[in-house]
Amino acid sequence: MKIVRFSLKNKPPMWGLWRESYVRVIVASPFEGMIVGTSEQYPIEEITLLPPVAPSKIVCVGLNYRDHAEELGMPLPDEPLIFLKPPSAIIAHEEAIVCPKASSQVEYEAELAVVIGKRSKDVREEQATDYILGYTCANDVTARDLQKKDLQFTRSKSFDTFCPIGPWIETEADHSSLEIKSYLNHELRQSSSTAQLIHGIPELIAFISSIMTLEPGDLILTGTPAGVGQLNPGDRITVEISGIGTLANPVT
Amino acid sequence: MKIVRFSLKNKPPMWGLWRESYVRVIVASPFEGMIVGTSEQYPIEEITLLPPVAPSKIVCVGLNYRDHAEELGMPLPDEPLIFLKPPSAIIAHEEAIVCPKASSQVEYEAELAVVIGKRSKDVREEQATDYILGYTCANDVTARDLQKKDLQFTRSKSFDTFCPIGPWIETEADHSSLEIKSYLNHELRQSSSTAQLIHGIPELIAFISSIMTLEPGDLILTGTPAGVGQLNPGDRITVEISGIGTLANPVT
Repeated sequence: MKIVRFSLKNKPPMWGLWRESYVRVIVASPFEGMIVGTSEQYPIEEITLLPPVAPSKIVCVGLNYRDHAEELGMPLPDEPLIFLKPPSAIIAHEEAIVCPKASSQVEYEAELAVVIGKRSKDVREEQATDYILGYTCANDVTARDLQKKDLQFTRSKSFDTFCPIGPWIETEADHSSLEIKSYLNHELRQSSSTAQLIHGIPELIAFISSIMTLEPGDLILTGTPAGVGQLNPGDRITVEISGIGTLANPVT
Repeated sequence: MKIVRFSLKNKPPMWGLWRESYVRVIVASPFEGMIVGTSEQYPIEEITLLPPVAPSKIVCVGLNYRDHAEELGMPLPDEPLIFLKPPSAIIAHEEAIVCPKASSQVEYEAELAVVIGKRSKDVREEQATDYILGYTCANDVTARDLQKKDLQFTRSKSFDTFCPIGPWIETEADHSSLEIKSYLNHELRQSSSTAQLIHGIPELIAFISSIMTLEPGDLILTGTPAGVGQLNPGDRITVEISGIGTLANPVT
C-alpha cells in the first residue's frame, strides 16, 4: 500500500492511497487506526504531492554502511551513531534542493527512511517491526565542507531543503534486502542493499527508543552507502529503492 | 508578562497569564496576534504547569561561555556551534529528570532559552529581537560520559526528560545582562551573566535563521556557564535567571 500526503488547490493537506492514475482519499491519518479508502478520488494531474509525513523529529544514523565510513575516512562506531535533522529541512518529491551560500560542497546521501507508526519507547528488537508504518526514500543532503569544519554534524545537515523525502510511504517491504541506488543526472552513483547495513532496522529502533520516545510519523534515516558526491545548481538527484519508489529533486 | 501553559483535570492544555495566586486564560495562543486575557481564571492550586511551549525544534548552542569551554577542555569555536535536542526530551517545572541506565554521569547545564515568536528566516542581527516572544529557563541535561564517547552530542543530550523548561515565558527582559545561576540541592553551582555570552542572542538568531527556518515556539538554548556537575537520584536541581524565573526539577 502506498500512502501519500497531497494537496489540492486551496485545500489543507489530505492523506490518500496512490493508484497510479489517481489518488483515493483515506478516512483518517494513517496513524489513527485502520487505513480505509473513501469514495473521494482525484486524478494525479490535479494533485501536488507533499512530503509523505510531518515528523516531530528526524533521527539519522551515521556511518551505517561500512564502505561509506571508509570513503569518509571515519572510524566505525561500535554502537549506532545518531544525529538529528530539523523538520524544517523537509521537502517533497520534485521540490528543489537549494545550495546555501555558506557551503561550496553540498552532497547527496541516498537513504532508506523508516516511518514510525506508533509511540515507541524501550522497544525490544524482536518487536521492533510492529512499530513501523512503512518506508520512504530520503536524501540526507549534507554540506560536506561544513561537516568537516564543525565538530557536530548539525549545521551541515540542517539547512532548509536538506531533507527531501518521498514520494510516498510504502507499507509492504522486506527492509532487510532492499536495493538502494542514487543517480546524479541519470548517472548511477550509489548502489547497495540494506543487507549491507551495519546496524539493521530492528536494532536501530530498539537503540533509539531506549534513548528517546519516538512518536507516530517520526523518521529514522538509516544511513547512506558509498558513492556520495557533490550537487551543483542545475543537477537532478534521484534516490531509488526497490519496492519503495523513486524520489527525485532538482538542485538550484 | 508571564505566559504559562497549563492543564486542569481532564482538559486539553490552555494558555494563560501568571498572576501569582491565579492564572488568567488568554484568548488564543501567544503566537496568534495580541495576547489578551479573558474573564476565565483559576487558582494556582488547581492547575498543573506544563512546559511553557511545544517547539517544533530545539536548537542549542555549545561552548558559548568561555569558562565552560575551558572546564571541558574544548577549543572555542569561531562561529556558534549548534546542535539539536528532540522535542521528546522536554519536561515541565517540577517534573522529574530520569537518569538512564546507559549513563553513569548525568550532568545539569543551566541555560537561558529564547522562545521564537514568529517565523524567522535570514533574519538580520539588528532585527532579531523582533522575532523573540520571550525567555524561559532551561536545563540542557547531558550524559557527559556518552558525550565524550560519541563523536556527536546527540545521544548524550536526547534522553527523555533531558530538557526541563519553564516555569513560564517572560516577555519582558533585557537579554543582554541577565544573571544566571544553578543550585544543586540549594548549593550554588553556576553563577554568571548573559553579558558573558561569546555569541549574543541577536547574533545567534541571525546565524541559526541563515541555516534553518525557525517556527513560532521554537527554542534556542544559548549555552551554559562554568560549574556544571553531576546529578544523582534524590537530587534537586534549580535554574534561576534574574527577571525570568526559577525552574526546579527533582532527579530520579
